[in-house]
Amino acid sequence: MDKLHWLYDLLDLAGTFAFAISGAVAAKQRGLDLFGICAIAFTVACGGGIIRDVCIGAIPPAGLANWHYLAVAILATGMTIGLYPFVQRVNHPVLFFDALGLSLFAVTGAQKALAYGHNGEVAVLLGITTAVGGGVLRDILLNRIPVILAKEIYASAALVGALIVVLGDYLKWLTADWVSIVALITCFALRLLALRYHWNLPVYADEKTSD
Amino acid sequence: MDKLHWLYDLLDLAGTFAFAISGAVAAKQRGLDLFGICAIAFTVACGGGIIRDVCIGAIPPAGLANWHYLAVAILATGMTIGLYPFVQRVNHPVLFFDALGLSLFAVTGAQKALAYGHNGEVAVLLGITTAVGGGVLRDILLNRIPVILAKEIYASAALVGALIVVLGDYLKWLTADWVSIVALITCFALRLLALRYHWNLPVYADEKTSD
Amino acid sequence: MDKLHWLYDLLDLAGTFAFAISGAVAAKQRGLDLFGICAIAFTVACGGGIIRDVCIGAIPPAGLANWHYLAVAILATGMTIGLYPFVQRVNHPVLFFDALGLSLFAVTGAQKALAYGHNGEVAVLLGITTAVGGGVLRDILLNRIPVILAKEIYASAALVGALIVVLGDYLKWLTADWVSIVALITCFALRLLALRYHWNLPVYADEKTSD
Repeated sequence: MDKLHWLYDLLDLAGTFAFAISGAVAAKQRGLDLFGICAIAFTVACGGGIIRDVCIGAIPPAGLANWHYLAVAILATGMTIGLYPFVQRVNHPVLFFDALGLSLFAVTGAQKALAYGHNGEVAVLLGITTAVGGGVLRDILLNRIPVILAKEIYASAALVGALIVVLGDYLKWLTADWVSIVALITCFALRLLALRYHWNLPVYADEKTSD
Repeated sequence: MDKLHWLYDLLDLAGTFAFAISGAVAAKQRGLDLFGICAIAFTVACGGGIIRDVCIGAIPPAGLANWHYLAVAILATGMTIGLYPFVQRVNHPVLFFDALGLSLFAVTGAQKALAYGHNGEVAVLLGITTAVGGGVLRDILLNRIPVILAKEIYASAALVGALIVVLGDYLKWLTADWVSIVALITCFALRLLALRYHWNLPVYADEKTSD
Repeated sequence: MDKLHWLYDLLDLAGTFAFAISGAVAAKQRGLDLFGICAIAFTVACGGGIIRDVCIGAIPPAGLANWHYLAVAILATGMTIGLYPFVQRVNHPVLFFDALGLSLFAVTGAQKALAYGHNGEVAVLLGITTAVGGGVLRDILLNRIPVILAKEIYASAALVGALIVVLGDYLKWLTADWVSIVALITCFALRLLALRYHWNLPVYADEKTSD
């Protein structure tokens, strides 16, 4: 299934690109300068993976050592600045790629943790971290409550994807590649359906309690 | 002193639970969804320990690899949502367990750094980090100034606890277990007294300077 | 060039001190207590280096293991509290030392990454991280958008300094010591000129978009 790995890398870069665009747009709206936009784009695209790599002992983190990620972040910054009206109009494609990136990062994050010999819990937690970590860092840097903690099923979709990878690894019903495909499609479909139908996890708002 | 280690693990989980409750309550008051509450609870309970483990080279971090911590965070989330009126009423017990968790994390954090062969300064700094790191991450995620930086003697109590562990390790007046007990009790008592009598470190408010 | 290393260590501590002062002043203006001021001062002075060390596998991080840094942070806290009117008046010297610290941390950060056998991209990215990481952590803890992402050429100066170190290492036109000196002076001059003439990177403010 070597053909798959070619597709894999392409999807990985597509996900990185989508996350970088989402970061660049948010940073531009806050009035950050060229470097700031680029830094936020890179952070969103690679932050989750860097935290994962530090936690599993993959030194140096791939996001720092592999120039593809940096190049994609710079490209996304350039596009966001040069083609902003266009980028605004492709909001839906961005949500689409963002969902793709989320699914892919959840799956590859969990797989990388397993490949480094860690247990299933580490793999699930770091799959989620890889998928949502960059977005959380972006919101912390831009000084707002991380939206992923309060939005349509997002981190939960990553949880499902990572969980399928780990279960597949234990049960061995399918080959690792097929497990990845099933996890990827499930996570992706869950996120798209949540976006389409505004699915949310229950919120337990307490009318009488103000912060 | 094998009996002590049984007590130890129980206290460790009690501290984790208290921190998880404090995180879940704060997240619920901000209107986060089910996953968000659980994520904040887990972060508060395990964040400090994960930072410590990354800094001392304990890969993977225990907070990610040991399912007890995750289970306790999920349990705390469930209790906070299901029994919120009850949890609100046990505010004082939570402060009590929080102080216990603080003391225990300061002591175990310093001990773990020493056990990994690091020097006393690393042990003290990471003892404090273990004790207060989760709370700092919680406040960063919920977008407020970390209260532990501006409240009744809190991090300072952790400093005292971690310092006693390190001094005990150098001076060897007592066995490691007795040093832990002394450090634990001192830190715990200091925190409870600070809460009771509103002890604070000096603040150097500068009336004429506004930010 | 052993004499240089003596100068080196002195400059390193001067940079640490400048960063610690800038953190202590910001924390004091926010009304934090003694411990809070000291914690912020230490974080600004050592935060970037600790992140770098974790990413390159230098365990334990030098900022935690070497007491010089902690002592400098405590000294800076004491001076900021005891001599506040004086510290306020030396605002320009602080900007000067801050620029020196920025240049030095960018250069030493990149060099340390290379010394640990990592590639040029890791060195550049971690040179920047070392130089600006502490300031970003300070602003996150004090709950504001990191100013370094929106101010006069700052992180970009660190980028130039780190880039010169990496290029020097590849091209080998000069000895490592001379490369450091050139990188240091370039970064420092760039930052001072940017301060003096208010150079900024382009901002792409979008009048019609509000957050």
